Amino acid sequence: MSLHTGNATLRVLALTALILLLRLGSVSAQQAAPGKDPLPSWNDGAAKKSITLFVAKVTKAGSPDFVPPAERVAVFDNDGTLWAEQPMYFQFFFALDRVKALSSQHPEWKTKEPFASLLKGDVKGALAGGEKALLEIVMATHAGMTTEEFEKTVRDWIATAKHPKTGRPYTEMVYQPMLELLAYLRANGFKTFIVSGGGIEFMRPWAERVYGVPPEQVIGSSIKTKLEMRDGKPVLVRLPEINFIDDKEGKPVGINQHIGRRPIAAFGNSDGDLQMLQWTTAGARARFALIVRHTDAEREWAYDRQSGIGRLDKALDEAKATGWTVVDMKRDWSVIFPFEKR
Amino acid sequence: MSLHTGNATLRVLALTALILLLRLGSVSAQQAAPGKDPLPSWNDGAAKKSITLFVAKVTKAGSPDFVPPAERVAVFDNDGTLWAEQPMYFQFFFALDRVKALSSQHPEWKTKEPFASLLKGDVKGALAGGEKALLEIVMATHAGMTTEEFEKTVRDWIATAKHPKTGRPYTEMVYQPMLELLAYLRANGFKTFIVSGGGIEFMRPWAERVYGVPPEQVIGSSIKTKLEMRDGKPVLVRLPEINFIDDKEGKPVGINQHIGRRPIAAFGNSDGDLQMLQWTTAGARARFALIVRHTDAEREWAYDRQSGIGRLDKALDEAKATGWTVVDMKRDWSVIFPFEKR
Repeated sequence: MSLHTGNATLRVLALTALILLLRLGSVSAQQAAPGKDPLPSWNDGAAKKSITLFVAKVTKAGSPDFVPPAERVAVFDNDGTLWAEQPMYFQFFFALDRVKALSSQHPEWKTKEPFASLLKGDVKGALAGGEKALLEIVMATHAGMTTEEFEKTVRDWIATAKHPKTGRPYTEMVYQPMLELLAYLRANGFKTFIVSGGGIEFMRPWAERVYGVPPEQVIGSSIKTKLEMRDGKPVLVRLPEINFIDDKEGKPVGINQHIGRRPIAAFGNSDGDLQMLQWTTAGARARFALIVRHTDAEREWAYDRQSGIGRLDKALDEAKATGWTVVDMKRDWSVIFPFEKR
Repeated sequence: MSLHTGNATLRVLALTALILLLRLGSVSAQQAAPGKDPLPSWNDGAAKKSITLFVAKVTKAGSPDFVPPAERVAVFDNDGTLWAEQPMYFQFFFALDRVKALSSQHPEWKTKEPFASLLKGDVKGALAGGEKALLEIVMATHAGMTTEEFEKTVRDWIATAKHPKTGRPYTEMVYQPMLELLAYLRANGFKTFIVSGGGIEFMRPWAERVYGVPPEQVIGSSIKTKLEMRDGKPVLVRLPEINFIDDKEGKPVGINQHIGRRPIAAFGNSDGDLQMLQWTTAGARARFALIVRHTDAEREWAYDRQSGIGRLDKALDEAKATGWTVVDMKRDWSVIFPFEKR
């Protein structure tokens, strides 16, 4: 294309357009490209269709179901919904690795349960002590340091630890279809939050990079902290005392405490998410609830009604009774993990 | 300007540029308009200059002080910083009005302190019982209903109640210079949060309309809530039990709990904000702290070192010692309340 000097203004405007288009590229591509599927890892079917229909109706100006952007709040469980949770919650692997790392400072752990069993690799034996044993492990590994020290420990661990089955970093064991869903909702004006039974400060150091969810949009279980002055500088010290359990009945409480308005969409995978989905869908006007069902023993794991991690029983009954969307991972997801070959 | 048909591509690009520039208009206007003062109610002086210099350096790409937008977190105290707090915290007027409104359901209050004194208009007598009396008043007026019922009560009150001195709605007794500051920071990519000793659920129903701060960016004191099923629907019931006091040492705790990263700018007016300002400025790289000093007995109130509501003593010493910005309302603000004639 040849440009005449008389068209200087036009040239400047054209250049400006190119620059602006490049800057807006990521947003425009997701919102406007009519030929591009925003959810390519979702197979066509009822689940995918229910998502796109819901988003279409709440974002259509003038529609009776229209929701202003400020109220487009979507909440996601983490374990089993955004990343895997087998054979144990990944945060528990973190705790195990911390027990090993800290054991030299705690010679008494060699004979003291639940640590003695853990150090011998006997997780079942360690957890025989029930909730009390679990709490002791959590407090020994999550309390007693400043928030900055804990954050660094999590960052270092997540950068190096590998899943025992796949040999992959834990942050690669996230669900590709859910990453697409998070991005799709945000491209449609949603604010996406994590609402997890896991530790709030365990997720925040990597949730922004992995999920695009900033720390202020992560809600989770927590221990108490206390302000102290150390060398003339304020630090927050993590105390061995539960502050909040963000699970089951706690999820609506945590949502209300942190967000202060009712979500219009909620995504979970287990009975621990039931109350969050009930709370979300009990609101007036258009609401959306979705349950991820683990049905693919080959590519991931297959489990639901049996007891244990990620049990899905009551919430599945409720989903069927009330018409919530149920995702069958084997049927509905063409890709589960980002590292799979398509 | 004449366009030749051979320049069709150029024309399309030029038109696109114009459309995109118009769409970006609101942002560009606030950020770029060099002739327009974003803080018109701030008199020229050291305080105003310190704000604009800070914003300029953290937003300048390539500068050593540049802060990415995601980390541009600014926290504001509410009582005495964003709106007035004399002769009592406005939330206390709400509690008084609630005691009157609820008194017919509580015949026992006629003889039971602190309610008996309150109903006779004797606030001093009611508060003679100290913290215990205050807690009784708070719980009687803030607990025992669902979160939705409480929100409606606050909305109704804030829409009709008037300040005893000015006769104005409380939401008009906000500081015009601080409204401009909130908008100016947001126009420069900041996320603005309220971090108040006041009740989180007392502020949320009106903070978005009045301050442009959405509910999920309001942090405050709270009582516990509990999920219950009523008529088959989940509700959150407000319990007469303190959950969190977001004051003094509690402010950094609340900031860490809700935001999960250290603010780069903090704004307060009393010793209750000292730890928040210390926490903010203890971070690495560029940080900003500002204290509003109530010095205008004519247009507002004049108070600081004496004990009572909004006491500013230790925080003023620290501001002077460390170089925090101190705003002298009388000197630095040409307008205090939006309803004043300029």
